[in-house]
Amino acid sequence: MKDMLGRANAIPAEAALRLLIEGLPAKSPREVRVGISDSLGMICSKDVMSAEDLPHFARSTVDGFAVNAADTFGASETMPAYVTLSEEIFMGKETEVVLARGRACKIPTGGMLPRGADAVVMFEHVQAVDETMVEVLRPVVPWENVIKPGEDAKAGECVVPAGRRIRPQDIGACAGIGITEMDVYERLRVSIISTGDEIVPAKASPAVGQVRDINSYVLEGMISAAGAVPLRKGIIGDEYHAIRTAVESSLKDSAAIIVSGGTSVGTKDMIARVIGDIGDPGVLFHGVSLKPGKPMIGGMIKGVPIFGLPGHPAAVSVCFEIFILPVLERMSGLKEKFPRHKGHCIKARLSKNISSPQGRQEHIRVVLEEKDGELVAVPVLGKSGLITTLVKADGTIVIPLNVNGIEAGEEVEVRLF
Amino acid sequence: MKDMLGRANAIPAEAALRLLIEGLPAKSPREVRVGISDSLGMICSKDVMSAEDLPHFARSTVDGFAVNAADTFGASETMPAYVTLSEEIFMGKETEVVLARGRACKIPTGGMLPRGADAVVMFEHVQAVDETMVEVLRPVVPWENVIKPGEDAKAGECVVPAGRRIRPQDIGACAGIGITEMDVYERLRVSIISTGDEIVPAKASPAVGQVRDINSYVLEGMISAAGAVPLRKGIIGDEYHAIRTAVESSLKDSAAIIVSGGTSVGTKDMIARVIGDIGDPGVLFHGVSLKPGKPMIGGMIKGVPIFGLPGHPAAVSVCFEIFILPVLERMSGLKEKFPRHKGHCIKARLSKNISSPQGRQEHIRVVLEEKDGELVAVPVLGKSGLITTLVKADGTIVIPLNVNGIEAGEEVEVRLF
Repeated sequence: MKDMLGRANAIPAEAALRLLIEGLPAKSPREVRVGISDSLGMICSKDVMSAEDLPHFARSTVDGFAVNAADTFGASETMPAYVTLSEEIFMGKETEVVLARGRACKIPTGGMLPRGADAVVMFEHVQAVDETMVEVLRPVVPWENVIKPGEDAKAGECVVPAGRRIRPQDIGACAGIGITEMDVYERLRVSIISTGDEIVPAKASPAVGQVRDINSYVLEGMISAAGAVPLRKGIIGDEYHAIRTAVESSLKDSAAIIVSGGTSVGTKDMIARVIGDIGDPGVLFHGVSLKPGKPMIGGMIKGVPIFGLPGHPAAVSVCFEIFILPVLERMSGLKEKFPRHKGHCIKARLSKNISSPQGRQEHIRVVLEEKDGELVAVPVLGKSGLITTLVKADGTIVIPLNVNGIEAGEEVEVRLF
Repeated sequence: MKDMLGRANAIPAEAALRLLIEGLPAKSPREVRVGISDSLGMICSKDVMSAEDLPHFARSTVDGFAVNAADTFGASETMPAYVTLSEEIFMGKETEVVLARGRACKIPTGGMLPRGADAVVMFEHVQAVDETMVEVLRPVVPWENVIKPGEDAKAGECVVPAGRRIRPQDIGACAGIGITEMDVYERLRVSIISTGDEIVPAKASPAVGQVRDINSYVLEGMISAAGAVPLRKGIIGDEYHAIRTAVESSLKDSAAIIVSGGTSVGTKDMIARVIGDIGDPGVLFHGVSLKPGKPMIGGMIKGVPIFGLPGHPAAVSVCFEIFILPVLERMSGLKEKFPRHKGHCIKARLSKNISSPQGRQEHIRVVLEEKDGELVAVPVLGKSGLITTLVKADGTIVIPLNVNGIEAGEEVEVRLF
């Protein structure tokens, strides 16, 4: 299980993710009640049930005339049906009218259908004869152009299911049934611990040999974009006890912990050692058949997933995407058939051959260009330690584990950043 | 230009959108300075330039030994090159070492390359002879495994261009060059005016004939999701002066105005009349060859786009997607080759034939199901006036203007909500 440098063998990314997912405790985040306007993008934690019929009265879906459908049967332009006008229906008003056979009421879209009426003929299909009578030029069937009571939602029906990531229309449906507060899962708190003796804060002027903290900002943004709350825990030197203290204190307030950096052999071991020493159970894997991202560490401490990320920004981005995002999604309470964590993808043709050794999943940053009306994905050259290669790129393509490479002109799927 | 009911003829959706886009004034939103951690998703308003080289010293990208590349030329497992060890390089420390030919320094990933060295040999390709000497088993070329000063960003180089929607890696790059605040465009403020004599607030108990406000909540969510700021201006009755006053007051604090509802013939005319009467220039179109969404009004008042949306929730959703979102994106200052406003799309097979008359763009809500390992898009039945059809749906498919329908089994693109 260890290579000649004492490192555990790399395992495929899918197997690594499975170890993390299987190690997650079966618990949901805490619930919290929020106003519906603040619920967008959060995960609904309890089925939202309607206490009433929506609508609670029959409404017209068109501008026209409420009628007895039977009075219009057989009507045509050449043989219209004649109906006598009763009083007009007004928006937002209860009507006392009881519509007799042979009669019709002018009704606006959304207006309340009078008792006795069971359909609405659109204005377009009616012609005035005089002040008191109209010709109906086309038949309507019972309940045509009508929303019946409870047709939108019935009393006792679940309108928004638990586990859904709340969308604008879900909020609208709650408003429609008079629900202005919702129970949702609290956003997950994710700690970011930057390690590295060479790392100084973004505001500092680095001395020769030092560099500013980049990764904790990239992670902060990715965590926010994932709907979780980033907690930046500062920069810790490459020192076992300092890192262990930071991890132990983060266990108290975090659903997940990311330790970024620790790129040198000694430090990588140190982070793995901290995770292993706290244990319960500790390190799940150390090393993934993945580029960039090979030295990735995945662990679990008392049900809290902990990720040791390599220091290269491109590796941070890839490891977040393929390990941290699915784990956070699984922990969030989301129960959706078709989760959208993969982001927006776009098809393009690859501009040139890329080779990749078998047995390694490789993520290539690309820029999109339009050539002769076609989208072309051009690989971004440059080392994965350069943040600007990520900045220049529009997205990434993936060469799977057992594929040797992709040829120029092949169609690829670009996941846009 | 008017039909027998006095309504203007419907125009294609593309032509309607073009009228709106062409009518937009050529001005950018106000700029505001924010901390980089608060800039995610906002639009960068000024090129971010680097004042320095990143990194400002040569760094190793691997754990290994800094060497003179020339000392390794021709090295192999059978004919290794022998180099003598100088003092070790430590993370974050400036090194005083000047590496002589024939010498090597142990160096961690990210460590500063000593003067004289021009490459790093990975640990894996080195074997210890004794405390003072190592064998190099493979040659390195000059600058192999090294990030040169300025290789990530050069002093004077633009790191994040104006017009970009800021992503996590853009924030990371700013941090890397010591920039902790950015100039961004202010989020656009969009007013929502709900109209309708039958509409009561979500908190109210509607009397018979009344319904709760749904659309302003749907719009609020869609505006927020688009990165703009929704301003709910309350519910206004179907009364010309009240609507006109609400529109005129919203012109003072809004980049765009949405008037929702006004679904009856009289009210629709009233909203068009308000827009036309304020003028400058007023109504651009009234009626679109679109389902749902046909009665849509598009206008412009003193450079502020104004949208009169039909009252059906499904129409609100479609009109927002195809008119309001592109207009807001155009106004936001975004200058991207491949904007992502279309959201995440997924391919599926249609479950059954759908017909649609030529000359109308039709948006069909669908539920996604998995059958025999394939995704199937099943149209959601139900009137566009029902909010729950939008809640049940996973997304929509579009039948273009000049297509009669789509057959069961055809591949369709589902835009997920």
